[in-house]
Amino acid sequence: MTKIEPRTLKGFRDFGPEKQVMRQTWFAKIQDVFESFGFLPMSTPVLEYKEILMRKYGEDEKLVYSFKDNGDRDVAMRYDLTVPLARYIAENQGRLVYPFKRYQIAPVWRADNPQKGRFREFYQCDIDVVGSTAMLADAEVIACAAKALEAVGLSDFKIRLNDRRNFEVFGDNAADIIRSIDKFDKIGVDGVVAELESKGINAGVIETAKKLMDGSADLAYGAQLETLRVDIIKLGIAESNVVIDPSIARGLDYYTSTVFEIVIPSMPEFGSICSGGRYDSLVDQFSEQPLPAVGASIGVDRLFDAIQEKGDAQVASAVKALIINFDEALQDQYVALASWLRKEDVAVELYYEPVKLDKQFKYAESKQIPYAIIIGTDEQSRGVVKLKNLQTREQIECTPVELLKNLT
Amino acid sequence: MTKIEPRTLKGFRDFGPEKQVMRQTWFAKIQDVFESFGFLPMSTPVLEYKEILMRKYGEDEKLVYSFKDNGDRDVAMRYDLTVPLARYIAENQGRLVYPFKRYQIAPVWRADNPQKGRFREFYQCDIDVVGSTAMLADAEVIACAAKALEAVGLSDFKIRLNDRRNFEVFGDNAADIIRSIDKFDKIGVDGVVAELESKGINAGVIETAKKLMDGSADLAYGAQLETLRVDIIKLGIAESNVVIDPSIARGLDYYTSTVFEIVIPSMPEFGSICSGGRYDSLVDQFSEQPLPAVGASIGVDRLFDAIQEKGDAQVASAVKALIINFDEALQDQYVALASWLRKEDVAVELYYEPVKLDKQFKYAESKQIPYAIIIGTDEQSRGVVKLKNLQTREQIECTPVELLKNLT
Repeated sequence: MTKIEPRTLKGFRDFGPEKQVMRQTWFAKIQDVFESFGFLPMSTPVLEYKEILMRKYGEDEKLVYSFKDNGDRDVAMRYDLTVPLARYIAENQGRLVYPFKRYQIAPVWRADNPQKGRFREFYQCDIDVVGSTAMLADAEVIACAAKALEAVGLSDFKIRLNDRRNFEVFGDNAADIIRSIDKFDKIGVDGVVAELESKGINAGVIETAKKLMDGSADLAYGAQLETLRVDIIKLGIAESNVVIDPSIARGLDYYTSTVFEIVIPSMPEFGSICSGGRYDSLVDQFSEQPLPAVGASIGVDRLFDAIQEKGDAQVASAVKALIINFDEALQDQYVALASWLRKEDVAVELYYEPVKLDKQFKYAESKQIPYAIIIGTDEQSRGVVKLKNLQTREQIECTPVELLKNLT
Repeated sequence: MTKIEPRTLKGFRDFGPEKQVMRQTWFAKIQDVFESFGFLPMSTPVLEYKEILMRKYGEDEKLVYSFKDNGDRDVAMRYDLTVPLARYIAENQGRLVYPFKRYQIAPVWRADNPQKGRFREFYQCDIDVVGSTAMLADAEVIACAAKALEAVGLSDFKIRLNDRRNFEVFGDNAADIIRSIDKFDKIGVDGVVAELESKGINAGVIETAKKLMDGSADLAYGAQLETLRVDIIKLGIAESNVVIDPSIARGLDYYTSTVFEIVIPSMPEFGSICSGGRYDSLVDQFSEQPLPAVGASIGVDRLFDAIQEKGDAQVASAVKALIINFDEALQDQYVALASWLRKEDVAVELYYEPVKLDKQFKYAESKQIPYAIIIGTDEQSRGVVKLKNLQTREQIECTPVELLKNLT
């Protein structure tokens, strides 16, 4: 038989047990925060009609994975969680209760050039409020996302706030200029200016853009931003973690007013680990009934990488003990013991083969199982078991009832 | 602007909050059972090199979603969770500790003809033990899957066990005959016989196949199956729920000995809601080092449909109270109260706009939030709040400290 090389596609990753246990723990913590703010989970398909996703992502549209399915339909893989939400809202508009608050934690795909920390398949954690124009909704979405970051152990982040309408001074050129200013973090003021010049933007407009970026401009929507900043702080985010930053543009076409991103100042290499804003017209494209919306999206892959780089995040095993397969003749006892302990809500593992003890202990240690239970014919005949603490190497003899007490 | 029709692809589904809350609760219960048996989570990409998935699924291979990506690579969407596991094992063989026990809960895609209960995108919940030939591993995998079904409220299921090697009597024709016998449930003995005749199988062989299906044949591997059946019962599954059934073949090409499926006898329309078996050669295709494996896969979409059909499964809201937006002038108070209660670990929601009370109460009810907190200028000046039980309509007045006590 010809062997097939076992490999994954560039930009795609496996998460083996040691990593996935941690990821799931973090996802659960983020989920708890989302639910504590009243967001409920939702799920949409990985594949959508391609037309649903088109004309939403500006020049990044070329990164959408699309193909013809067996029925010759043009289909595309989920590029973010926001456009499918807008499609869902439009499709179910009449029967939903507003404000509609949902969260979704799911992978998305972008045919981007893979590089450190950037993948073609990655997870987003999104929260959105649909059907409210209140600035309080913007504040809660941003505060909730920040609380989620705190829940997984991140505290030294910076929320940078802006209002897209501050770019209205640019008139017809606004979209073009926003796209350039969006690169400010990567290419600096000079880079943006050079790009604007190459786009043929006139010198007066470029001067205005420079003032926006260096913070010296009077903002048309400065008062609203200040209210937003104060509300976020009132919702429990440290004042030093929230700033107004007129250089924040965000690349996506659909934002209409508030835009924000969250960065880790001490780890600029991770870029923004959360971003979002208000998009009051997205549902329009699918429906006659317009609906305002505001949302945040956490890039958890970057976030998790950042947490791991800051220190280790150990996760305890759910399994309390490994029942050692000491003597094949006693296997029925082992099975009965496992069955009884599990019924008493003690998670235990059974080693399937009567191999050398050393190998079985190593197995337990590799899975961070804290105890081993050993029963030989001697223990069996006396109705006792040996319980070994695999960390301290201490071993005690106990009755089944005592064993249960020790493991709970 | 031209409107785009908001619609989902045939065979694909959204799960809105009311459904997804339940699904996540069920997934968490299944996950707990898997972890209590020592299975750890793992995640693999949605896209794989197409060659990885080919020649594994028999005649169903045509149902694999495949396409050329932007880099002209032949890629395919995950069709099950077993083949990606085999690829992962082969890729990481040297650094893993065996037996390798993992679970994975994730969607898969099949370009099948959608019909009631059959979708093109659906979830599988898989557990597998890789690196053990012990029959005890087969028993644990099957018992663990059955315990997961019990955890979500299903008890009247039937585990049907067989051993693929019982088909060895068919010699070179085995693969062909297995494929026909696999349809026994749908087309009956007569259907299978007709199909075998049309395949040109000789009468003697067909007679043997008939005996297998009607249970009158002596099974070559009957003793091993009996051991397996008894072990599953010892692991805590009701004896009446486990039977040996020589007509079980399972369609997939990769099974080598044990095969099983779990059905709900009172709901035959759901077909098998869990299936699996031993596949000792799958990793061979990717590696020089063979590794034995046994696994089970729960078709949770069918399972969840079945549970819902049996009765309602209500899920409580994580949010304890809605803070009513009674007076816009007091909004700062509402925000401060929300922030304080959340810090005290009470999940509360804030209504964003000061609309009619009725609308706000209806919102709370639609999300099954049990309490409403009302503060007007009168309450505010006296330092109290009104707490309304939305089920009983009872309303009490209390201090913030009493409020906290009432909500925890």
